[in-house]
Amino acid sequence: VDGLAAAQARVLARPSVLQYGLPHAALKRQIVELMAMRGVDCDPEQVLLTTGAQQGMDLVARLFADASGAVLLEQTVYEGIHLALRGPAPRLLTVPARPDSGLDVEAVAAWLASGVQPRFLYAIPTGHNPLGVTLADERRRRLVELAREGGLPVLEDDAYGFLSYEGTPPPALRALDERWVLYLGSFSKILAPALRGGWLVVPPELVGPLATLKHGADIDTPSLSHHVISAYLETGDLPGHLAMVRAEYRRRRDLMLECLADELPPGACWSRPEAGMFVWVELPGGLDTAELLESAIERHGVAWCPGQAFAVGGGQHAAHCMRLCFTAAPPAQIAEGIKRLGRALAAALERPRPAAAARERNLDLP
Amino acid sequence: VDGLAAAQARVLARPSVLQYGLPHAALKRQIVELMAMRGVDCDPEQVLLTTGAQQGMDLVARLFADASGAVLLEQTVYEGIHLALRGPAPRLLTVPARPDSGLDVEAVAAWLASGVQPRFLYAIPTGHNPLGVTLADERRRRLVELAREGGLPVLEDDAYGFLSYEGTPPPALRALDERWVLYLGSFSKILAPALRGGWLVVPPELVGPLATLKHGADIDTPSLSHHVISAYLETGDLPGHLAMVRAEYRRRRDLMLECLADELPPGACWSRPEAGMFVWVELPGGLDTAELLESAIERHGVAWCPGQAFAVGGGQHAAHCMRLCFTAAPPAQIAEGIKRLGRALAAALERPRPAAAARERNLDLP
Repeated sequence: VDGLAAAQARVLARPSVLQYGLPHAALKRQIVELMAMRGVDCDPEQVLLTTGAQQGMDLVARLFADASGAVLLEQTVYEGIHLALRGPAPRLLTVPARPDSGLDVEAVAAWLASGVQPRFLYAIPTGHNPLGVTLADERRRRLVELAREGGLPVLEDDAYGFLSYEGTPPPALRALDERWVLYLGSFSKILAPALRGGWLVVPPELVGPLATLKHGADIDTPSLSHHVISAYLETGDLPGHLAMVRAEYRRRRDLMLECLADELPPGACWSRPEAGMFVWVELPGGLDTAELLESAIERHGVAWCPGQAFAVGGGQHAAHCMRLCFTAAPPAQIAEGIKRLGRALAAALERPRPAAAARERNLDLP
Repeated sequence: VDGLAAAQARVLARPSVLQYGLPHAALKRQIVELMAMRGVDCDPEQVLLTTGAQQGMDLVARLFADASGAVLLEQTVYEGIHLALRGPAPRLLTVPARPDSGLDVEAVAAWLASGVQPRFLYAIPTGHNPLGVTLADERRRRLVELAREGGLPVLEDDAYGFLSYEGTPPPALRALDERWVLYLGSFSKILAPALRGGWLVVPPELVGPLATLKHGADIDTPSLSHHVISAYLETGDLPGHLAMVRAEYRRRRDLMLECLADELPPGACWSRPEAGMFVWVELPGGLDTAELLESAIERHGVAWCPGQAFAVGGGQHAAHCMRLCFTAAPPAQIAEGIKRLGRALAAALERPRPAAAARERNLDLP
């Protein structure tokens, strides 16, 4: 907060920052430096500044997708991409993604071999939202190889790429290919969401068409936030801030994992994220996390994100799952929250569950 | 600048403003108060906060328009709406708009009578961009009557509605109907463009669908700018700021109009704006303002916006016109700029103009 306040104060010493103008050239150069931390070598001419990473998603969806084509998604993935794809309305194809190993790269190969030519694949290889998983190095190489061979653009959402807790994380996909990988970055997770600062790194010939789309969406001009972000980066304080954030988030992750082991019922299992903000929990006994939510809030004072929110096409495969965030709450609240979660689940497992039973019966229908 | 700097400093005293959250409730209430200055009575439940007015345009275009429908536009109008309509790609229907009287309301009646049912009409009734004209009161009433009878939503772009120079301006169209008029407001022209702050006032049942679209576009969360704008409005300083801005812009407008009378060649004519930022100039002798621009910059050190930039569908009807902005430059630059403009036009009128002559000949072709 102090760093941003100081940056803000410096910015308004030059009142011209309040006007319309060209996209922030200095910020683009600073992003090029930042990308080196993700193993990526790029130029300012490949950078498009956006109103948060969500806008990057929206612009790429608008440029690449339409109702006559298909887009490839992990079957359980950040719900913002579902929203961004609503307008262009492509056919949604999915590949499995597991909380322990991530995106099933061979399923991508199978889609390509089947002859469909998706407009792009959206993926979160590092600190997956909501699964928490980070794709292993050899799978990354195979995925990029497939993208290159199959002419499949990959939109790599790296919002959590700077939040890694186990030594050096694998380099971004973009480090492996500068033509087929479109990189999406965000200041929301490393500085502040309210800054609405994000960026794309794309082949230079895509910057123009994307900038035109951005002009129609909210005018391609530097926002006050872009000036503030640039002034903050200029201080050189970001690496120290990131080290502090990583240490604190690692502590919270470890605490949440310990508490889950103590409090969750037998049969529950969860991911052990090396990066990002989320633990993915899978529950036993036909529990439906969306159905349980209201009574958990009312009777036990605890809430979560139901897995179904992330299921592409509204599928039921994640109905027994939930996403927990280990970064937003201080340690004492994490401990208390997981205790309450344990109580809520224990109570639910003791009750008869007509809805879940009915659904299981439905599965037996021809 | 001082007011915004103070507002910024106050905002960061509450670090929670940096997080994701619900759209800024206090700012919505402040906008309701602001709307009273435009004769509009509304509720916070009718307000959607946007990333500048351009995003409001984009969201309405996405919600209402698609390739199977039509949208009605003035034939010469702000180019940002052209861009916002590119994605949905409706058929573009136009009505004439004159720099002395504005939108031709009876042409709207004619379209409706012809049986087409446009998805909406986009119009700038006050301080038109680029024509400078403000629609008279009786034409406003007739337009709203037509909208009601014909079931035609009107997207009223009121970005310049607070910048009026001749006593009380006519109330916004939205003051005449709260069902069929969708109001688009902007802080860009009354505070600062870099704040990227705008708003829509719409029937409450449209707020949900528009908010969902906004979530997919850039996440419907308060930006730091929205907090800063709200903190500034809280001081009560805006009416004084507006009075200062209006007085200064009126002075610049009057100066530009005087200079145009002194410097422009016979046969040129221009609008006398009661509101907004722009004077629209029509030139004699087959001059093409887009063709002249490069040599005017190089030889005379003066530039303008060619009229063709605002012509819907790339029509040639505004090729002999230009938009001049009287608010952005200080008085001495306005005087010098119009002198140079006079010299550039005099030089052009003395030269043979093969391109224009060729175009005139083309007009004779069957």
